[in-house]
Formats: sequence, C-alpha cells, structure tokens
Amino acid sequence: MTDILDLDTPSVLIDLDRVEANLKRVQDFADQSGLKLRPHIKTHKLPRFAQQAIDLGAVGITVQKLGEAEVFADAGITDMLLTFNIIGAIKLARLKALNDRVTIRVVADSTECVAGLSTTFAGGKPLGVLVECDTGMGRCGVQSPTAALELAREIIAAPGLEFHGLMTYPAAGKYQQAAAWLAEAKALFDAAGIAVPIITTGGTPDIWHADEAGVATEYRPGTYIYMDRSQVAAGAASYDDCALTVLATVVSHPTPGRAIIDAGSKALTSDLLGLVGHGYIPAYPDAKVVGLSEEHGTLDVSACVNGGPKIGEQIAIIPNHCCPVTNLFDAVHLVRDGKLIETVPVAARGRVA
Amino acid sequence: MTDILDLDTPSVLIDLDRVEANLKRVQDFADQSGLKLRPHIKTHKLPRFAQQAIDLGAVGITVQKLGEAEVFADAGITDMLLTFNIIGAIKLARLKALNDRVTIRVVADSTECVAGLSTTFAGGKPLGVLVECDTGMGRCGVQSPTAALELAREIIAAPGLEFHGLMTYPAAGKYQQAAAWLAEAKALFDAAGIAVPIITTGGTPDIWHADEAGVATEYRPGTYIYMDRSQVAAGAASYDDCALTVLATVVSHPTPGRAIIDAGSKALTSDLLGLVGHGYIPAYPDAKVVGLSEEHGTLDVSACVNGGPKIGEQIAIIPNHCCPVTNLFDAVHLVRDGKLIETVPVAARGRVA
Repeated sequence: MTDILDLDTPSVLIDLDRVEANLKRVQDFADQSGLKLRPHIKTHKLPRFAQQAIDLGAVGITVQKLGEAEVFADAGITDMLLTFNIIGAIKLARLKALNDRVTIRVVADSTECVAGLSTTFAGGKPLGVLVECDTGMGRCGVQSPTAALELAREIIAAPGLEFHGLMTYPAAGKYQQAAAWLAEAKALFDAAGIAVPIITTGGTPDIWHADEAGVATEYRPGTYIYMDRSQVAAGAASYDDCALTVLATVVSHPTPGRAIIDAGSKALTSDLLGLVGHGYIPAYPDAKVVGLSEEHGTLDVSACVNGGPKIGEQIAIIPNHCCPVTNLFDAVHLVRDGKLIETVPVAARGRVA
Repeated sequence: MTDILDLDTPSVLIDLDRVEANLKRVQDFADQSGLKLRPHIKTHKLPRFAQQAIDLGAVGITVQKLGEAEVFADAGITDMLLTFNIIGAIKLARLKALNDRVTIRVVADSTECVAGLSTTFAGGKPLGVLVECDTGMGRCGVQSPTAALELAREIIAAPGLEFHGLMTYPAAGKYQQAAAWLAEAKALFDAAGIAVPIITTGGTPDIWHADEAGVATEYRPGTYIYMDRSQVAAGAASYDDCALTVLATVVSHPTPGRAIIDAGSKALTSDLLGLVGHGYIPAYPDAKVVGLSEEHGTLDVSACVNGGPKIGEQIAIIPNHCCPVTNLFDAVHLVRDGKLIETVPVAARGRVA
C-alpha cells in the first residue's frame, strides 16, 4: 500500500479509525440521551460516511444547500432535512423535484418563504416544513416562541405544506438558552393543541451537552465526524480525535525561525473561528501557523526543538475548521495506520447553490 | 439573452467591459513604465483571459502551482513563470514534463531547492531559474542581496539549470523598499559580472507605482483584472473598476436591521485582508456584511434607507478578495450590460498542488 508520505501535497488525509470512533461515540451518546441523530453532511460531503452514520443508527442526514441534497439523493440517501430557507423560482423547482423522489423537509422563518413553498407544493406531494428559530445565534429564525407559533399556523393553513416541527442552530455555548427557548415554544404549541413531531437542534461544539437539550427530539452535529482545532478549543474533542489533516511540504526555510509550507488559504481556509493562528501540527506542537497567503503557509518554528521541520519534510496539520477544507479539494485520501486505503472524490464539493 | 437576475444564486458574475478596461489600463501603464507585464492567472484561472492579456502585450503568465501551469499549457499558453519553490520527486517530475513542452521558469530560494532541480534537469532541456528574494514580505526568499548572489552562483554552477534573474513579491505598500533591495542586488551582480536578464516584481496593491520599480524589468499583477474591495482600500481601484461580484439572494430578514443572504464563506471566503466586514454592496452602500458562516451571510441593514433589500431580492457583492472566490466556483458567468454572455468553467479551480 502507498505510504501517505508518497502523496503529492497539499492533500487531505482522513483517518478512518478516528472517523469510525467519532461516529460511534456520538451515536452512542445520542442513544443514551434519547435523541435521534441527523448528522450534517457539510463536513465530509461524502455519501459513504452519511450511509455509515445511518448504519450506526442515524435517522437521516442534514444538508444546507439543494445541491448537496441532490448529490446525496443521487447516492441513495432517502431521508434529509434541508436547514435553509428556500427562496426563488429556480430553487423551488429543484426542491419540488427532490420531494418527489426522497423524504425531504425544509425550514422557513418568514411568511414570504412559506408563501413560495405553498405555491410550489399545492396540489402535489406535500412538503414537510419546520419553523426555524433564532435561539441566540443571531442568524436566521423567528425571534420568539410566539412568532414560531404564528408561523406554524401559517404553514398549517398553507396548501401543499405540513407543519413538522421546530429547528434551531444554537450559538456555540448557548445550548441552555436554546433549550429554554424551545421548551417555552413547546409549551405554547401544547397549549394551542398543535403537535410538534420534530424539535431539532445541533452543533458539535456542544455535542456533549446534547443530553441537556430538553424538549429536543433530534440533534444535528456535523464536524464531529472529523473534529478540528476549533472543536478542541471548544472542549468537544482532543487532538487525538481529529480525523482530518492537511498534508503539506516544507518548501522554504528562509530564516532559522521561519518555515514556509505549500498549504495556504486555498488548502486550510482563512477561517479563524476566534483562534490565533491557522492550525495545529501534532508532530511539531511548538510550531505556529502564523500566516497564510493563497498557496503559502508561514510557520514560526522558533520555539521548536532542533529547529523544527526541514525543507522537503512533510507535515500534517489539523486545520482550524475542517468543513470548508473539504470544500477546497476535489478528492480526499482515506488512510489507516499511515497507509493510503483509497482516494475518493468529494461528491458534494462546491455545491454552493 | 438571459438577464443576470434569472441566475441561480450564489453565482459569480464577471463584467466583461470592466475586465477589458482593467487589462488595457494596466498594460498601457506597464508599457509607459518600460516594464514587461506577466499577469498572474491565480485571480481568474481562465485561459481566455490569459490569452486576452497576451494579445494586449503581456509577455506570458505567472502561475503559483504546477497544476495551474499544466492547465494553461494544455490551453496553449507557452510562456510562464512559476513563482514557487518546487520540492519533492512528484513535483519535479511534473515540472520536467512541463519544461519539455513550454517555456517555464521557476524560482528557488535555497540550496536544497536548487539541488533538487539540478538533479532533475541535468542532461535534459535546461531549466531557467530565478532567485526568489524576500524584500519585505516575510514569506519565501533569500534574505539579502549577498545571499541572492551566492544562490545565483550555485544555480550557474548546477548542471541542467540556467540563472535567469531575480524575483520578488513585495509586501503591499513596500514597493520602495523592494526597489532599493533589487537595485542593491543588481549592483552586486553587475560588479560580479553576472547578467541578470529578468528582474520581476509584482502586486496589484502598488500597481500604480510600477513606474518606480527601478531596476525591475517585469511586473506580475494578478488581482488587477477583477479588482476587489481590498484593492479599493489600497487605493489601486475604485468600486466602478470591480469586475467580479457574487450574486446572492436575501433568504431571511429576521429583524428589521438584519438580513441573511445565501452567500457565506463558501462563496465570499473568510479573507479579511485587514478589512472590517466581508464585502461591499454597490446597490446598498449603507449595508454591512457583518458575518459569514459557510452558507449564510449576515447583513446589518439598519443604516439603509427604506430597510434595505427584501426577502427574495438579489444583490451583487464585491468581495474583499476576488482571487480565492473564483477558486470556490466550478463556473463563472460572463456578463455585459447586465446580460449573461456565457457561462465558463473555471479551468484551474482547485489546482492546489
């Protein structure tokens, strides 16, 4: 088998042992917590890993864009939640085509969104719609439990639509606030006599607090399959859990304290997520990835014993944020015990629409 | 013809009138300044625009990675400078194959790099090598004019290699420092009786100071073809010069002051380049792109007259940094006068190695 050090760089390596351990650990915790698991595929964008999670007990997948849903439907995944407000004629037509062949639910946070969905789905196979709730993230979502109830009534009244529940993406660290919000909403719906079949929340940063998700029925983590430096910083993982690394080569060492690698923002992304620096190098924990341009990464190796990595040396980097990294590579290398098992195209890479 | 507002979003639009004006303006200025122009293709990654620049007078192209060189060689471009230290057996073999079919020069900043090149090219068609010089960027490059001369002597002595000159990528705003560095180096080479056929510098931020580049013979701008918000901030362009926009749709408007678009970091990138916010919206100059997650952009529209864009409205955004944006899209839409002319695949997208 090919040794990973024979691969061209920069490359993305996926450690299968760690993937399998991460999938199982989180599925087990969801089971213990009485939550259904609906992993977000944005992290890996690979149907095989979606299927592997389903085989372990996940109820389906979460996708963020129609293009992702189409790729995973083509690959045989039959149950998905699209956590995005679908707006506009082109996207509504694509959603209708998807709904005709798989189980797909979407979210809505506005009258305008509900109106577009209803116009499209009236008279055909009904579409399941969840109300998106802003429980602290400050992104999409209705702003109060009362507003959630109002929008649910609109969905219930809208031809072609069925009200299937509530969805939130909680801000990292605000899981208690999200749980309280959803509990208040659930009480309102109960008082109104409206069933809420699904209450879905998510996020890997607070995955180990999923058992405190209160009225939630379902959890949607994404990053947990690979983990990354931001999840280590959030306390959700250790570096030994991180399954995705970017393999890079030292191409220049202009000063004793500075080494340059062939992985820049086109490999590691510019995502900081509140961190300082652009990644962690397990083999050189004292090296810092202090700067990125598109194709160069700048390492400060002044704190490394023996000067750190040399020109020509390959090093593996745990990125700040693994999800956008997989969106930059046409293919990733699946490895086990330092050996290449298979190189697979990233099926849903670039599915931005 | 298709109106751009009939396109699915997010999409990348390229205004051809602005592209043509930018290409001509910079070529004219290079001509006036007595400099050869060697545009960097990393910005557009499209052979047609490389050829268009050559037709206007550019001497060839600049590429950053072998994968880009291969795409442009396949497309018929025959003269290129690869401004990267090529290290390792896989890349050296690819470089040798390229050198056998086009004129390609590379850079080196270390004895190790020169040794690898020489081992590969000894006995075959010689390779032209420039010494990469760190004139203030703090990335790759030899650290002094004296070190440049020493490495040039190694290249001259190395079988299979020819010394073709000096290359630098100056830090933005440090063009005078770069010019002084190169002038000092040129004097050293002159005193040593070593010809320096090419002295190549670059950078769009200081493009309008190219006439102050001193001993330089060649200039390598990239971003100038599209321009972007960072170039406007640098004083190199106005918003009316910006040829690349990301077309997005408002998908949510959860509060009066907050609108959410379907373009996040997977469309606009997380690149800040020292700026606050993630783009400029010409139609809503008072709107601020205050946050990006992967698929959502958050706008603060509280300062907009009449509340800013509404749900379903499409808006065009000038990104902070246009180059990595084109790396995120499989295709871009060429437009003129608001009409779609052609949709073209981004030929060298994702060529990271």
